[in-house]
Amino acid sequence: MLQDQQYLRIPGPTPIPPSVERAMTKPMVGHRAKVTDDLQEKIQPRIKKVFGTEQDVLIVAGSGTSGLEAAAVNTVRRGEEAIVIISGSFGARFEKICLAHGITVHRYETEWGEALDPEHVRTMLKEHPDVKAVISTYCETSTGVVNPVAELAKVVREESDALVISDGVSIIGGVEAKMDEWGLDVLVTGSQKAMMLPPGLMFAAVSERAWKQIEANPDRGFYLDLVQYRESIRKNTTPFTPATSLLYGLDQALDLIEEEGIQEVAARHELMRDMTRAAFAAHGIPLLTSAEAGSPTVTAVRPDDFDAEEFRRILQTEFGLAVASGQGKLAGKIFRIGHMGYCSPADVLQMIAIFELGIIKAGKQIEPGKGVTAAQQIYLRKGEPNQ
Amino acid sequence: MLQDQQYLRIPGPTPIPPSVERAMTKPMVGHRAKVTDDLQEKIQPRIKKVFGTEQDVLIVAGSGTSGLEAAAVNTVRRGEEAIVIISGSFGARFEKICLAHGITVHRYETEWGEALDPEHVRTMLKEHPDVKAVISTYCETSTGVVNPVAELAKVVREESDALVISDGVSIIGGVEAKMDEWGLDVLVTGSQKAMMLPPGLMFAAVSERAWKQIEANPDRGFYLDLVQYRESIRKNTTPFTPATSLLYGLDQALDLIEEEGIQEVAARHELMRDMTRAAFAAHGIPLLTSAEAGSPTVTAVRPDDFDAEEFRRILQTEFGLAVASGQGKLAGKIFRIGHMGYCSPADVLQMIAIFELGIIKAGKQIEPGKGVTAAQQIYLRKGEPNQ
Repeated sequence: MLQDQQYLRIPGPTPIPPSVERAMTKPMVGHRAKVTDDLQEKIQPRIKKVFGTEQDVLIVAGSGTSGLEAAAVNTVRRGEEAIVIISGSFGARFEKICLAHGITVHRYETEWGEALDPEHVRTMLKEHPDVKAVISTYCETSTGVVNPVAELAKVVREESDALVISDGVSIIGGVEAKMDEWGLDVLVTGSQKAMMLPPGLMFAAVSERAWKQIEANPDRGFYLDLVQYRESIRKNTTPFTPATSLLYGLDQALDLIEEEGIQEVAARHELMRDMTRAAFAAHGIPLLTSAEAGSPTVTAVRPDDFDAEEFRRILQTEFGLAVASGQGKLAGKIFRIGHMGYCSPADVLQMIAIFELGIIKAGKQIEPGKGVTAAQQIYLRKGEPNQ
Repeated sequence: MLQDQQYLRIPGPTPIPPSVERAMTKPMVGHRAKVTDDLQEKIQPRIKKVFGTEQDVLIVAGSGTSGLEAAAVNTVRRGEEAIVIISGSFGARFEKICLAHGITVHRYETEWGEALDPEHVRTMLKEHPDVKAVISTYCETSTGVVNPVAELAKVVREESDALVISDGVSIIGGVEAKMDEWGLDVLVTGSQKAMMLPPGLMFAAVSERAWKQIEANPDRGFYLDLVQYRESIRKNTTPFTPATSLLYGLDQALDLIEEEGIQEVAARHELMRDMTRAAFAAHGIPLLTSAEAGSPTVTAVRPDDFDAEEFRRILQTEFGLAVASGQGKLAGKIFRIGHMGYCSPADVLQMIAIFELGIIKAGKQIEPGKGVTAAQQIYLRKGEPNQ
């Protein structure tokens, strides 16, 4: 095997575009220098567009989990109540974070692989009128489910004053997010997924009404106290030393998104999802999620007549292609494919061709090429611009 | 001015060695892949040597401030007492962190520019026998003071069971630290100073006795809960997605430290300090710190007959050389020179030659070259190997 050829198709971290890699090697500068302030100022309007918000997008040196914790502890106080919607491992992590901070959790666990039902949340809000926040994952990385966060936000607004908090880690940058229009109150993400960067940056945007709740909270901690980041970003700076090399990379990644266009980026991700799903459907291999709930960034496959782990091993050792295993209760039962960020329909075709060889080598008799053809047909039907 | 030539001589972030820059552009990999576990396993024994500890060195995606918060909140509970020693801005930040978490602070503020007196801490411990931790900066970045942390730890051990917590942000990697031998209980640092990396990683090591206190603390938060990092690092992994590109850089930076030798790295930093101090002494320009308290990594200069800010402006605009301003109560009164990490005696000679021009242009009549000569003499006297 050509050792230096690796295909990273897990749902994050994702491959880094060469121009982003190069940007990250720019010479180091002072974190209080004008050049760094200018960089922050240049980043803001573009990252806001990615979130679909007029609010500041706060940038923190930390991994995605720091964003989940920041979202919870800034808005909900010890002893207060939150609804946590668990549609997979990352929803479960949100619950752990809330419990670690003494927040009373009303849990709503969906079948893993299914999206949340906003009407169930309506019922819960009627039962628990004092809930301060409704917390969910926008895209559940562990199942490939995209939750209907806009519909959720609408229901929450109708029923209560609770904030709508969403973990957008594996989808922001791969979808046309409309945080303000949808009525999301806190939206967080990380750098290592559809944003095309290495891990190490966390992003958080906060609505006006959430800021009011945050400002009234006396116990926001320190490093993840979002008020400090807001005060600083208004002066184009950060309260603590930022991860400078990743900011250089972000600046370039935002250029790439801007050059392609956010709508086009979103359309590319939907196309890659549809191509991937069509390929497995062509072979009658079950997917974990319905077409409606399927994320544009990650697809989970639940094979019933070949071994997911053996398939993963073959892809890795023969082709240097990495897909992810299942997590939590889905460990060993599914594999997960990331098709996001620095990934194109052309990459998806290659990946599907490799998958077919892996499926055959894992012991399932299929007709090679049938999945590739199905994906090509999707491309031909949907892949033309402005359709 | 040759625009692409910049000399970053602030006390962090510091310049990145070219081999470290290149290492950071390695292709992205999965955070749960064996290759990442292998990287973590390769890093551990070498980072432990840099800390002078047998304990695991926990690596967190975050800036240095996340290390200060982690050190405080893991060890001291809300309502418990800590002594916080403030010898500059970063000691003051530690106090803010403690207060944000409801920790009762007994403050000991030194004259800024002076080191802490362990005997004063002894007196305080007698007055406050319930103190759970004594918190100080090892090197106070804002003043260039290196505090006698080994002597402090000895006094604390004699007087109480309090833990000794030290912020090593601007010195670890530039000194031969002996955490275990000195009896430090929690030692934290960041990546962007003497470790020769961009900002974005925080490192923390914890003594056996501190682990006992931490394990008994039910309220450690989540993202900065050090127990989670300890459990993971024992399996060569991290609880949350690590900042992979910075880990690649760390691996290479540790190679550089290992190739030079930690004792030699420490000797180089002492030599750079002595050369820098001698140059200003030759011109009769006052330093903020005594020779004894002067850090091997950062020197603060307090000019009495030229303007520090005007001097900084001239260096930046005419030579692309950045030195830092004063912070807090020292703003406008001092300038601070970083001579750490990817910085050599040769760089110091160049820097001093530029400083002399800057001093003259800022209006002080000095004899150019006198500082360079003084530094050269220090080099000739001390710079030979094994002396």
